[in-house]
Amino acid sequence: MVLLTRKSEFSSAHYYWNEEWSAEENQRVFGRCANRNGHGHNYTLEVTVAGEVDPVTGFVVDLKQLKEILEDEVLRVYDHRNLNLEVPEFATRIPTTENIAISIWERLEGKIPNAQLHRVRVYEMPDLFADYYGER
Amino acid sequence: MVLLTRKSEFSSAHYYWNEEWSAEENQRVFGRCANRNGHGHNYTLEVTVAGEVDPVTGFVVDLKQLKEILEDEVLRVYDHRNLNLEVPEFATRIPTTENIAISIWERLEGKIPNAQLHRVRVYEMPDLFADYYGER
Amino acid sequence: MVLLTRKSEFSSAHYYWNEEWSAEENQRVFGRCANRNGHGHNYTLEVTVAGEVDPVTGFVVDLKQLKEILEDEVLRVYDHRNLNLEVPEFATRIPTTENIAISIWERLEGKIPNAQLHRVRVYEMPDLFADYYGER
Amino acid sequence: MVLLTRKSEFSSAHYYWNEEWSAEENQRVFGRCANRNGHGHNYTLEVTVAGEVDPVTGFVVDLKQLKEILEDEVLRVYDHRNLNLEVPEFATRIPTTENIAISIWERLEGKIPNAQLHRVRVYEMPDLFADYYGER
Amino acid sequence: MVLLTRKSEFSSAHYYWNEEWSAEENQRVFGRCANRNGHGHNYTLEVTVAGEVDPVTGFVVDLKQLKEILEDEVLRVYDHRNLNLEVPEFATRIPTTENIAISIWERLEGKIPNAQLHRVRVYEMPDLFADYYGER
Amino acid sequence: MVLLTRKSEFSSAHYYWNEEWSAEENQRVFGRCANRNGHGHNYTLEVTVAGEVDPVTGFVVDLKQLKEILEDEVLRVYDHRNLNLEVPEFATRIPTTENIAISIWERLEGKIPNAQLHRVRVYEMPDLFADYYGER
Repeated sequence: MVLLTRKSEFSSAHYYWNEEWSAEENQRVFGRCANRNGHGHNYTLEVTVAGEVDPVTGFVVDLKQLKEILEDEVLRVYDHRNLNLEVPEFATRIPTTENIAISIWERLEGKIPNAQLHRVRVYEMPDLFADYYGER
Repeated sequence: MVLLTRKSEFSSAHYYWNEEWSAEENQRVFGRCANRNGHGHNYTLEVTVAGEVDPVTGFVVDLKQLKEILEDEVLRVYDHRNLNLEVPEFATRIPTTENIAISIWERLEGKIPNAQLHRVRVYEMPDLFADYYGER
Repeated sequence: MVLLTRKSEFSSAHYYWNEEWSAEENQRVFGRCANRNGHGHNYTLEVTVAGEVDPVTGFVVDLKQLKEILEDEVLRVYDHRNLNLEVPEFATRIPTTENIAISIWERLEGKIPNAQLHRVRVYEMPDLFADYYGER
Repeated sequence: MVLLTRKSEFSSAHYYWNEEWSAEENQRVFGRCANRNGHGHNYTLEVTVAGEVDPVTGFVVDLKQLKEILEDEVLRVYDHRNLNLEVPEFATRIPTTENIAISIWERLEGKIPNAQLHRVRVYEMPDLFADYYGER
Repeated sequence: MVLLTRKSEFSSAHYYWNEEWSAEENQRVFGRCANRNGHGHNYTLEVTVAGEVDPVTGFVVDLKQLKEILEDEVLRVYDHRNLNLEVPEFATRIPTTENIAISIWERLEGKIPNAQLHRVRVYEMPDLFADYYGER
Repeated sequence: MVLLTRKSEFSSAHYYWNEEWSAEENQRVFGRCANRNGHGHNYTLEVTVAGEVDPVTGFVVDLKQLKEILEDEVLRVYDHRNLNLEVPEFATRIPTTENIAISIWERLEGKIPNAQLHRVRVYEMPDLFADYYGER
């Protein structure tokens, strides 16, 4: 088995806000991220898939196909968007790095032909990233 | 004369929109950047100052002081903000990479003790940056 | 479960020397690193913690708190220090990349609220790093 | 147990071609990579070994020795070469990132004294890499 | 005036060979690069253009248009190609980093609307690059 | 004319101390850098040379020769050394990033055959660098 990882980027706005809290409580917990005008990041996404190497092509996964799946399922939806206002899963889930990783997993799971989704890694900044391996 | 460069980062939301144009015209010229919900970036700022090396300290500029100036004049104002909605110069100037570089120059010019502002470089993405050297 | 990783940097001097060996033996085994005047590195530290995402905040761990723990337990002690002469664990343990990773693990273990320390990664140079996952 | 990782680079030409297929089929599956004049990459190789830290030296593995093994077994053979035409394993195996990772594992396995080969990671580009952990 | 820089990548094979020399002389001067089976690199191209910021758009240059010009004039011709065998200018000019920078300048000069080509930078490896500013 | 730049690295210890000042004054001006046990960095050195491209070789400068000059004049002297205690120019000159750039210029000037030294850039950290272009 070989693991293959593809990096992509998307640029989005977001903010942290819990509707059930007062403005003061949001400010206390989320600090500068609680600004509802939004701020933003160049997110880096690393998607890792696992599978056997096809002896005929030498590929675990067709990279052109993988790129199209990432484009259709994630990048087209997240890139140049305000995650809180325009991406459905973040209507009820705060778009932290952790939750973005989980959400991307849910968007990709079961969609990669001939290989298993192994890990979703999301960098919010070069010095902060979250890894999700699915329910385990 | 030696040039000294300090890198900083700020994370902001922005969008491109010319109020005098129709929505269609904004869409045509600015494409995905015309989304008024905003998207965002981790901007990297490189500020270069030029001066003589002080023979007593070995410094062109006191780095602690330079860091405070960058913090007060730029980072505190731009970081975790929506540039269009919260930073005064972008009320009338579209926050393109080019205009952000010019605006940071204007904020810093004349503020660095014992050294001259030489260049402001702003990266919007790792593969796109603008350089401004002042009026010349 | 989600893994969250935070990168930090510290700049330290060190050298490799085994007191029980002759100078020749130290030179033979450690080469240029045996210079007792010391040399130095910009170390990059990646600390990974594992935990459940809090449904209210969207966080595995409070990043502000994590940053303070890293600062208090590691960075304040290692940064701008001579590891051999000023950090207690390296009085008896050679400050190799491997031993620095183990020592940082020991400093952090049990200190992260609501999450488990999962991995400590230390880069001595961009092309050399050690990973420690604790006693296992 | 500690894991130690060393990065190296090699610059090689390659192309993708299955001799049992027509030119059209090669073109359809491999796209621009099917150009038999070759194209090339700066490959980045990360080799990870696992072992106990020697209490006398503080090392999992002697880095000078590790570097020589990488040089002799891999870099001398792959660097500044056309992988398809000059490296024996790629006479019958398409030099995809996946197959390069497996081939380097086979070249290194059992060669590292006092430590176990843990992982071979090969980057073909900064945004694409393959990991191989041996037969498991 | 503002300078705007766009990075792109291309992956090509090349080798160094002077037809007027013996094989021994080529080997002596060009070392491992004289292997006529070719080796390859991920080249990074930085193209810098200079111009006034359009007060209506905030742009020095339309990025979409710049990207298309780079694609048509350079990337489509160089990427996934053997520079010596498939790119006309390298039939008579050895494809060193220096000559690649000059050749890309010649391909782009006069093609950027409303802005001047200022600099072409080509990285052959992360630790080696050439800059060309045109005939001056 | 083409500019060619080569990057190298050296790992050194240093500290900031002015012998004519009290310990308090050194502490006040240099902060954590005033620790005389030393701390250290992975310095990145970029040396840029300028010249005409030789029509026979395609080179501005023979890279193998340039590498040897950098090794002999700079790296062998600075790498794995305590700059304050072991490098002569820093007996009387504080090893700031600015002074290191000037010192490397002085070591290299006039030593590059067929090309002119154009710029010395020294990174002390990824976010701090100094440029020196000689006496002008």
